[in-house]
Amino acid sequence: MKAVGLVVEYNPFHNGHRYHLAQAKRLTGADVVVAVMSGDFTQRGEPTILDKWSRTLAALQNGVDLVVELPVADAVQPAHRFAMGALSLLNDLQVADVVFGAEHPDWDFAAMVKAEQDFNQAAFHQFNNTYATQFNQQLEAVTGHALTDPNDILAFAYHQAKAAGDFGFHLQPIQRVDNHYADQQLTGAISSAGAIRQAVKGHQDVTETVPAQTASALAKLTTIPNWEQLYPLLANHLIQTPASLLEQTYQVKEGLENRLKEAAERHRDFTSFLKAVKTKRYTYGRLMRVAFYLTLNLSDQDMANYHPYHRVLGFTAAGQAYLHQVKKELSYPLITKVNQRMKNAELALDYRAGKLYQFFGTPEQDLTRGPIRLV
Amino acid sequence: MKAVGLVVEYNPFHNGHRYHLAQAKRLTGADVVVAVMSGDFTQRGEPTILDKWSRTLAALQNGVDLVVELPVADAVQPAHRFAMGALSLLNDLQVADVVFGAEHPDWDFAAMVKAEQDFNQAAFHQFNNTYATQFNQQLEAVTGHALTDPNDILAFAYHQAKAAGDFGFHLQPIQRVDNHYADQQLTGAISSAGAIRQAVKGHQDVTETVPAQTASALAKLTTIPNWEQLYPLLANHLIQTPASLLEQTYQVKEGLENRLKEAAERHRDFTSFLKAVKTKRYTYGRLMRVAFYLTLNLSDQDMANYHPYHRVLGFTAAGQAYLHQVKKELSYPLITKVNQRMKNAELALDYRAGKLYQFFGTPEQDLTRGPIRLV
Repeated sequence: MKAVGLVVEYNPFHNGHRYHLAQAKRLTGADVVVAVMSGDFTQRGEPTILDKWSRTLAALQNGVDLVVELPVADAVQPAHRFAMGALSLLNDLQVADVVFGAEHPDWDFAAMVKAEQDFNQAAFHQFNNTYATQFNQQLEAVTGHALTDPNDILAFAYHQAKAAGDFGFHLQPIQRVDNHYADQQLTGAISSAGAIRQAVKGHQDVTETVPAQTASALAKLTTIPNWEQLYPLLANHLIQTPASLLEQTYQVKEGLENRLKEAAERHRDFTSFLKAVKTKRYTYGRLMRVAFYLTLNLSDQDMANYHPYHRVLGFTAAGQAYLHQVKKELSYPLITKVNQRMKNAELALDYRAGKLYQFFGTPEQDLTRGPIRLV
Repeated sequence: MKAVGLVVEYNPFHNGHRYHLAQAKRLTGADVVVAVMSGDFTQRGEPTILDKWSRTLAALQNGVDLVVELPVADAVQPAHRFAMGALSLLNDLQVADVVFGAEHPDWDFAAMVKAEQDFNQAAFHQFNNTYATQFNQQLEAVTGHALTDPNDILAFAYHQAKAAGDFGFHLQPIQRVDNHYADQQLTGAISSAGAIRQAVKGHQDVTETVPAQTASALAKLTTIPNWEQLYPLLANHLIQTPASLLEQTYQVKEGLENRLKEAAERHRDFTSFLKAVKTKRYTYGRLMRVAFYLTLNLSDQDMANYHPYHRVLGFTAAGQAYLHQVKKELSYPLITKVNQRMKNAELALDYRAGKLYQFFGTPEQDLTRGPIRLV
C-alpha cells in the first residue's frame, strides 16, 4: 500500500480540507491518506475550536485513513520545528509523498533552502526586528521572493526539514483553494478555517462550509475555547512564581520573565496583557506560544526529556491495514492507548496539555482513551 | 491614651461586632480600639466576602479607631500561629487589654495552658486522628473541658501565646452575644457572620444585621468570592507542577503533594476535590489552607523570609493620635503606603494574596494604597 502524508491542524475540519486530501490522493496515486495532526493546541499556541477526538472523527469520515497526533512539544512551535516534528513522523510512517498547500506552489523552495546556507548569520542581531523580518530581507535579496504568506513559510520549512532529515518522501506543494487563512469572511462552501471560527463566534451558520460531523460538534459547543478563559491560570502563575523559577520555562529567558510577570500584575485580560508584552523583538505568535508554555509550566527539562512517538488517534480499515504494514519498521514507539504509567512518563506533556484543554469543559483527552476505529 | 486590642476577621463587619467592640471599650475603660484584622483571606484560607478596605471602612465608621492588617503569613494559619501573630502585633502596639469572645469565658484558660505542659507528647502520633482530637482527649482527662467551640479554641490559643510571648496586656474573655458562627440562620439584628454570608448567597435581605457601609458594599457584589472560582488556578498549578516542586510548598509534605495532584487531575470542582483529599489526618480547615498556600505558590522559603510588620489599613482621628503616641517604640516596621520596592520584598506575600483576590474583580489591593483616614 502506498501512502500520502499530510500535516494538518483541522481547526476545524472543513470542506477545503476534504477537497485538499482528495486532490493529494489523486495526485500521488496513494491508497491511504496519513495525517499528522496537532492535538488540542495549534502551532500558534491557541486552543483548537474542537478537541482532537472530534477533529479526528471528522477527518476519518471524510477521507483520512490514519490520524497520528503531533505531540505538543513539536506542535506548538515555530514553523521550522513544527515542520521537522511532523515530517519526522511521516517519514517514519513511510509515506511516499507529502502534499501541502502553498500560496506560491510554483516557487523553487528547495533552491531557496540552498540559498539560505549562504546567509550572513552575523547580520541577524538587530534586536528591534523579529528574526523573520531580518531573514526575509536576506532571502528576497538572493532569491527575489520573501516568505510572507503562512503556507509559503511552512512550505519552506518542510523543504528545510527534508534537507536536514534526509527524508525519503517527495514534497508536493499544491495551490491552496480556500482563501487566505487570515481572511475573516466566509466565501461559500470552501471557506478558510479562520473565517469559519470567526463565523461560529458570531453565531453565523457555517453548515455549508463543513462536513456533518464538524457541524454537529460545533453546534454542541457551549463555549468557544480561547485564551481569555485560560488567562487567570496564566496570570496567577506569573504573579505567584518567582522570576528565577519562571526563567526555567521553555523559551522564557533574557528578562522576558520579568516583563511577563509585570504585565500579569497589571492586566486583567489576555488581550491587554499580550499588547503590554509585545515588542518588535517578539511576534504575537511567539508570545502566544510562550503563554502556552507558561500555563503548561513547560520547563527546559521537560523539553529535554521529550522523545517523539506515534500517538494514534484514529484509523479506517485501510489505515489499520497500512499501520499493520509499517509498524514493525517504525523507529519511534507506537502508542494506541494511554495508561497510568505513560501519563507521568513519555506522554506527560500531551497529558498535561489535555488537562489544560479540559478547563473548557471537554472530557478526559488521553487517559485510557484508545483510537477511534472507523472500520 | 489607653487602648484595647481586638483580633478580628469582620467577614463581614456586622452589628454583633459593633456591640462587641463597644463592650470591650466600656469594660476596659479604653480611649481607643485597635483591631488587628485578617486581610482578604480568613484563618481557614477562604476569601472574605468583602475586601479588606471595605471591611476597614465599616469598622472605622462603627467604633474601631485603628485597623492593622494581620499579614497573610500569620492570618491563614491554625489557631496557635494565628493567635501568636495577632497578639505579637497588639503587644507591640502597647494595648492594655485584649478582649475576645468565647463560648465559655468562665473557664480558666490560663490553667488549661499550664496543664498542657504535662501532656504526653508521645501519644500524639495516632495518624488516624487529627491532632486536635488527640489533644482534646488529653485536655479533657486533665481539666474536665474539651476545646470544641471555635472561640474557645482561639481563647486557649491567646492564653498560650501570652504565656509564650510574655506579653504585657491583660486577656479578657467575654461571652459571645451572637449565635455560634456555624449557625447558618439569621437571628435578627445580631446574627453570626456565617449566617449573614449564607443569607447573602441566598439573596436574602441582611440590612437589619449589618451597619450601612457593610450593607451597601454587600449590595454592590456581583459575585461572592469563593473557592470554586479559584479552583481552576489551583487545579492547573497542581497538574502542571512536578511533585518535587509542589513539595517545596509550605505545609505540603509527606506524600500530600501526590494526593493533591491526583485529585486535581480527576476532579473538576473544589468541593469534590476537597472531599477526595480528605482523610482523618487532615481537617477541612487544614486542607483549605493548603489549597491557599498552593494557589499562592507559598514556599517554605517564602515563609522563612517573612518578618512581621504593622500594615495600617485605616484610622480615625483618635487612632491617628494613638499611632503617633506609640510609633517611636514599635519593634516591628510601620507600613502605611505600599511602594514598588515593598511589593517584591517584605510585603510580597500580602501583595500576592491581594493579586489572587483581584481575580474576584476587586480593584488593586495594595500597591500605592494608603490607609483610610476617617479624621
